[in-house]
Amino acid sequence: MIGEIISIGDELLSGTVINSNAACIGQSLIETNCDVRWVTAIGDDEGDILTAFKLAGSRASLVVATGGLGPTPDDKTKSVTARFLDSKLVFEPSILRRLEEQFSKRGLELPQVNKAQAEIPEKAELIPNPVGSAPGFSFKWQDAHFFILPGVPSEMKAMMEQTVLPFVQKTVPDFIRTRVLRTTGIAESKLYNDIIDFETRYPHVRLAFLPQRQGVQLRMTTRGSSQEECDDVLERGAEYIRSKVGQSIYGEGDTTLEAVVAELLVRKGLTIAVAESCTGGLVSHKLTNIPGSSAYFDRGIVAYQDSVKINVLGVDENVIHQYGAVSQETAQAMAEGVRRISGTDIGISTTGIAGPGGARPNKPVGLVWIGYSDNHSVFSESHRFTKSRLWNKERFANAVMDMTRRALLDEQRNPL
Amino acid sequence: MIGEIISIGDELLSGTVINSNAACIGQSLIETNCDVRWVTAIGDDEGDILTAFKLAGSRASLVVATGGLGPTPDDKTKSVTARFLDSKLVFEPSILRRLEEQFSKRGLELPQVNKAQAEIPEKAELIPNPVGSAPGFSFKWQDAHFFILPGVPSEMKAMMEQTVLPFVQKTVPDFIRTRVLRTTGIAESKLYNDIIDFETRYPHVRLAFLPQRQGVQLRMTTRGSSQEECDDVLERGAEYIRSKVGQSIYGEGDTTLEAVVAELLVRKGLTIAVAESCTGGLVSHKLTNIPGSSAYFDRGIVAYQDSVKINVLGVDENVIHQYGAVSQETAQAMAEGVRRISGTDIGISTTGIAGPGGARPNKPVGLVWIGYSDNHSVFSESHRFTKSRLWNKERFANAVMDMTRRALLDEQRNPL
Repeated sequence: MIGEIISIGDELLSGTVINSNAACIGQSLIETNCDVRWVTAIGDDEGDILTAFKLAGSRASLVVATGGLGPTPDDKTKSVTARFLDSKLVFEPSILRRLEEQFSKRGLELPQVNKAQAEIPEKAELIPNPVGSAPGFSFKWQDAHFFILPGVPSEMKAMMEQTVLPFVQKTVPDFIRTRVLRTTGIAESKLYNDIIDFETRYPHVRLAFLPQRQGVQLRMTTRGSSQEECDDVLERGAEYIRSKVGQSIYGEGDTTLEAVVAELLVRKGLTIAVAESCTGGLVSHKLTNIPGSSAYFDRGIVAYQDSVKINVLGVDENVIHQYGAVSQETAQAMAEGVRRISGTDIGISTTGIAGPGGARPNKPVGLVWIGYSDNHSVFSESHRFTKSRLWNKERFANAVMDMTRRALLDEQRNPL
Repeated sequence: MIGEIISIGDELLSGTVINSNAACIGQSLIETNCDVRWVTAIGDDEGDILTAFKLAGSRASLVVATGGLGPTPDDKTKSVTARFLDSKLVFEPSILRRLEEQFSKRGLELPQVNKAQAEIPEKAELIPNPVGSAPGFSFKWQDAHFFILPGVPSEMKAMMEQTVLPFVQKTVPDFIRTRVLRTTGIAESKLYNDIIDFETRYPHVRLAFLPQRQGVQLRMTTRGSSQEECDDVLERGAEYIRSKVGQSIYGEGDTTLEAVVAELLVRKGLTIAVAESCTGGLVSHKLTNIPGSSAYFDRGIVAYQDSVKINVLGVDENVIHQYGAVSQETAQAMAEGVRRISGTDIGISTTGIAGPGGARPNKPVGLVWIGYSDNHSVFSESHRFTKSRLWNKERFANAVMDMTRRALLDEQRNPL
């Protein structure tokens, strides 16, 4: 099945918005075994949308288009589709009811401009939007199946999963399966060298190295005549990778480092508190991104000024004077301090220099000390990153979460 | 001048790489006054590249293509161009010399595989690569000017600036200018209604509504015979929008809400401390994303458990029992409490239900109370959002930052 993605919106042409929707759709279509061959981005222009639809419909059998479904007049996709299908827009009462419900939940009346969202092209089939107001729709044109979705990423994703991908899976004959191992704290080149034999051992598995925010993901893809056959090959590939770099793998598939840490904390019935300096709240933010985090998360202290480290966390003033705020000693005292004042099982800490300013002799931008304390002992690690402020904060936060993950996996330290 | 961007590479279709090159090229072309109407992404496939070149050459007068110029056999762009031009690849000694120099600087001999990079299509003109090994080239096909550049972002950017943009500037007669106003805390439909006369008042300005994480951006685009003429029209458009929804506009161009709050704090010489519950550290994280944030940011207390609100922030236990942790009274007590223990000029707070669990009677998921305290008074607001946990945290954090921004702009409350 040949696929084309059409992304609609002036903001994509002018670079105001980077086309991450197309990447997301491409990835899920390819994993579902649809061979995406074109991505076309056009503006909110009726003529261009029409031309793109015709071209895509004549060269692809699956077309996924996003954008231009909002309530304002610069959104043209729906009216163009009606023209494309030689049809008109018709009012769909079920959409209106849903819109009214959504607005009334927020104590608002449905604005007149949003009422137009209850129309869809007559010859199209409604695709429900489980998370937002703009519905999508699908239709067949010549031999091509079109799916038209909103451009809001969360809505697009939900509708891909609920409607488009099941359709593709039903239609495509042979099987493609993928499996993703997520690593953190290891460089792409080291990872590549550590598993350099993979290609000769598993010639039918395509291995991609995907550097992401939390580390490099390893994506294996294989094709076969049954799901079981594919899964079996992938399982052997995963075992090989785990035997080489297992320590650096924190999870599989869609998980995150914070979800893995949260799951371990909940499973072992442990609580945690965070003392952060250079990460400025990011570690606490990540740990509270997981639903139900109040089961394990007690508090976070963003101790940006030394006085907070001393007065709130109880770090000895002399430690900071002697070793500096960015030091092993301070990191450990912060982790112990926040655990003591919170009465939690675990305390963790970060202290470093996110940049661009703040470097000292022997304390370069990108240096971080991270601390971990529980009722056995306290320990710490230092890391050095070399990116921009926001990237450094992200890397620092991942480093302390990964240290926590490893300590939680230690059965002697934290038995079930 | 009508432009088209062609992005070449399998990794763009599979979503392994997000097409940020196209966004970057689009932005600089539009600023230089080229009207980009299509972005096409295709894989490293000879047939598809040829088709894309023909289509682009027939509908655009400027075509910028990137990718597929590397030294390995999966890079096809150069050989396809030779076919497209009915020509062949010829050896260009100046490129080879440059390649040899670049490798010898790093103490390396030029690998055989890289020598092929010294070839370019016979009918094309060399575009020097000031920062990398793969050269680009340009040619004219029918009425279209083609510029073929490497996909490595830093190399592409350098060659755009050095060669492509000067060409466009020389060629294009009239000017395009854009201006972006950033709003927060106002729905797209309300915004649309509030400035509904814009189109009739400024028929030569195209207005786009772009919903983003921090709120809806309003992008105005206009065209004219001089930069001054365009800027003048945009200034009048901006004045009109400000007269209608000025309260909701936090900034222009590339700024963020946290950068605006930071700038106001620094300018007025004020310090801030944060007490957050439902946002779990996100407000502190955002406020410390700005370089130099230690000038205004004292501390953040992520008071996830009620005991922290009571014992650390000094919220009266009875307030929580009587009104609940998610209430106006608790939000205000948290803002006052964190200001008192920190000795800062301002204290702000969040307490709400991010979801998906945690709803109570009259306390639905998505409800938040945000508090603000300074040495004049304390006040609070409630908001109701209806999204997923992560989105709600983001909206809650933006709401409290926007409340802070408005308080900082109040000259009676916070004079310069």
